[in-house]
Amino acid sequence: MSPESPIVVLDSGLGGLTVVRELRNSLPQEDILYFGDTARLPYGTKTAHTVSGFIRQIITYLLPSDPKHVVIACNTATALALPQVRAAFPGLAISGVVEPGAKAAVVAAGSKQVPTIGVIATEATIRSKAYERAIHRRRNHARIVLRPTPLLVPMIEEGRHPGDPLVRLALEQYLKSMIQHGLDVLVLGCTHYPIFKGVIQKMVGGAVAVIDSARQCADDVAARLGEAGMLRGTTGAEPTVESVESAARGILRCFVTDDPDRFQRLAPRFLGVEIAAPALVPPEELYGPERKAGWRIRLPA
Amino acid sequence: MSPESPIVVLDSGLGGLTVVRELRNSLPQEDILYFGDTARLPYGTKTAHTVSGFIRQIITYLLPSDPKHVVIACNTATALALPQVRAAFPGLAISGVVEPGAKAAVVAAGSKQVPTIGVIATEATIRSKAYERAIHRRRNHARIVLRPTPLLVPMIEEGRHPGDPLVRLALEQYLKSMIQHGLDVLVLGCTHYPIFKGVIQKMVGGAVAVIDSARQCADDVAARLGEAGMLRGTTGAEPTVESVESAARGILRCFVTDDPDRFQRLAPRFLGVEIAAPALVPPEELYGPERKAGWRIRLPA
Repeated sequence: MSPESPIVVLDSGLGGLTVVRELRNSLPQEDILYFGDTARLPYGTKTAHTVSGFIRQIITYLLPSDPKHVVIACNTATALALPQVRAAFPGLAISGVVEPGAKAAVVAAGSKQVPTIGVIATEATIRSKAYERAIHRRRNHARIVLRPTPLLVPMIEEGRHPGDPLVRLALEQYLKSMIQHGLDVLVLGCTHYPIFKGVIQKMVGGAVAVIDSARQCADDVAARLGEAGMLRGTTGAEPTVESVESAARGILRCFVTDDPDRFQRLAPRFLGVEIAAPALVPPEELYGPERKAGWRIRLPA
Repeated sequence: MSPESPIVVLDSGLGGLTVVRELRNSLPQEDILYFGDTARLPYGTKTAHTVSGFIRQIITYLLPSDPKHVVIACNTATALALPQVRAAFPGLAISGVVEPGAKAAVVAAGSKQVPTIGVIATEATIRSKAYERAIHRRRNHARIVLRPTPLLVPMIEEGRHPGDPLVRLALEQYLKSMIQHGLDVLVLGCTHYPIFKGVIQKMVGGAVAVIDSARQCADDVAARLGEAGMLRGTTGAEPTVESVESAARGILRCFVTDDPDRFQRLAPRFLGVEIAAPALVPPEELYGPERKAGWRIRLPA
């Protein structure tokens, strides 16, 4: 791999596009391959064994693209499977969304002696205790309030907007007891949730720091690539026709395991811009002997 | 196969247990194998190609049990995949939930010249037009009002009860425009929805016939088995120790592709009684060469 290699971003479906959005803001020159496992989504109610298997299949499938970094842009998959996935691909740089979010939460908690940090996320992320561990590793004395909020993803995927009365009522129900605890920080522990960040910030009040794990994750990737000398355009290599053409803006190429049309239709809500039609990779191509020889590395224009 | 063979009931997850509940009421002597595809649920946002593939894998897996009937107890899977699945297993009796629900809706519409029939279901079921076709095949002149209601399944799986304000608001939003159309009949086109039948009936008013597709599906299975002479206890065969022991109540055995604990915990809400721990069949066992030799036919006690 080289600085010219792509960044691979994985998610169960659409949510990880909020990470891509942030990556494209901070690292516009990078090529990104995005894989949304839409045939098997959501991951939020599934077990570590199952989710870890799905993620390893997807990485194996995209390995021929020689990625310089793999981002698990899904809190559930990060929380349940990051260590197993790293162990399965030694030598491959893999990062997730939980650590950067936890780190930002601790920074935002500032100097308060025992800050109260809330986390909203899927059922599986909460059950995994990944945020608890990641926060406590950095701050022993933090009170952590966790709340699974399983309806937010289907509400966002249904296309509901933050002003919808049903969204407001669901958020009120979910956040009420957290607010009563006197939050200092609230972590949005799912890459879908930035869509509702504005209304959540209003509900918890301006004094509470609301941490967007998608944003933190993208910053973390940029820092890791910088440290490794792997940012595109930072080498002294001779420019090729290709590198010159793509200097201004890297390519985004999406893969899904089901329903490319639906993905393409809903993507702009998460990404902020339209996307080209995603490539379809049916799940059977990810299993054993039916597994395809591997994805062809050359990106279409 | 024989009248002693089991009935196989398939669903994406828990919803199909409402069909099992009705089957156990009307045909208590039957053995039932239930398969919930919890690693890949829900099916309601996925395509016909993907869902049809999942269902064919599951039937293949359970074929060694020599089923006398296969029930696709999931409206989405029935709507998207029943013809393809039937074509893939000639000679196997396979039925679904859409036709029985549509038939009951037309009967309930009675003699009204142009009845208004509403259907609530998942996004995929609505998009498939399966209910429209099934109703119009029986009654040319019916006005059909369709509404995807994608939040109801996650609300039920979150354990929310019909009296929850969020459930009421969601139902009000979904049903409002349907009620304004002047409904005569409302079909609950998802096997999860019977859980909310009471509150839905109240909202639409007592004059509207609310059709429970789980109930209709079970009645349909009983009728088909009766016609085929395949009801248990209807043959003149010599009773064995086993058949005598199980005469009063058939066995229910559950299989899931992920998280047997969660399934076992949530099952009573749908089934009305507790279940034994389900067997875990990870999805990789359903694919190609890793496919297991087949499920051993003898049922544990």
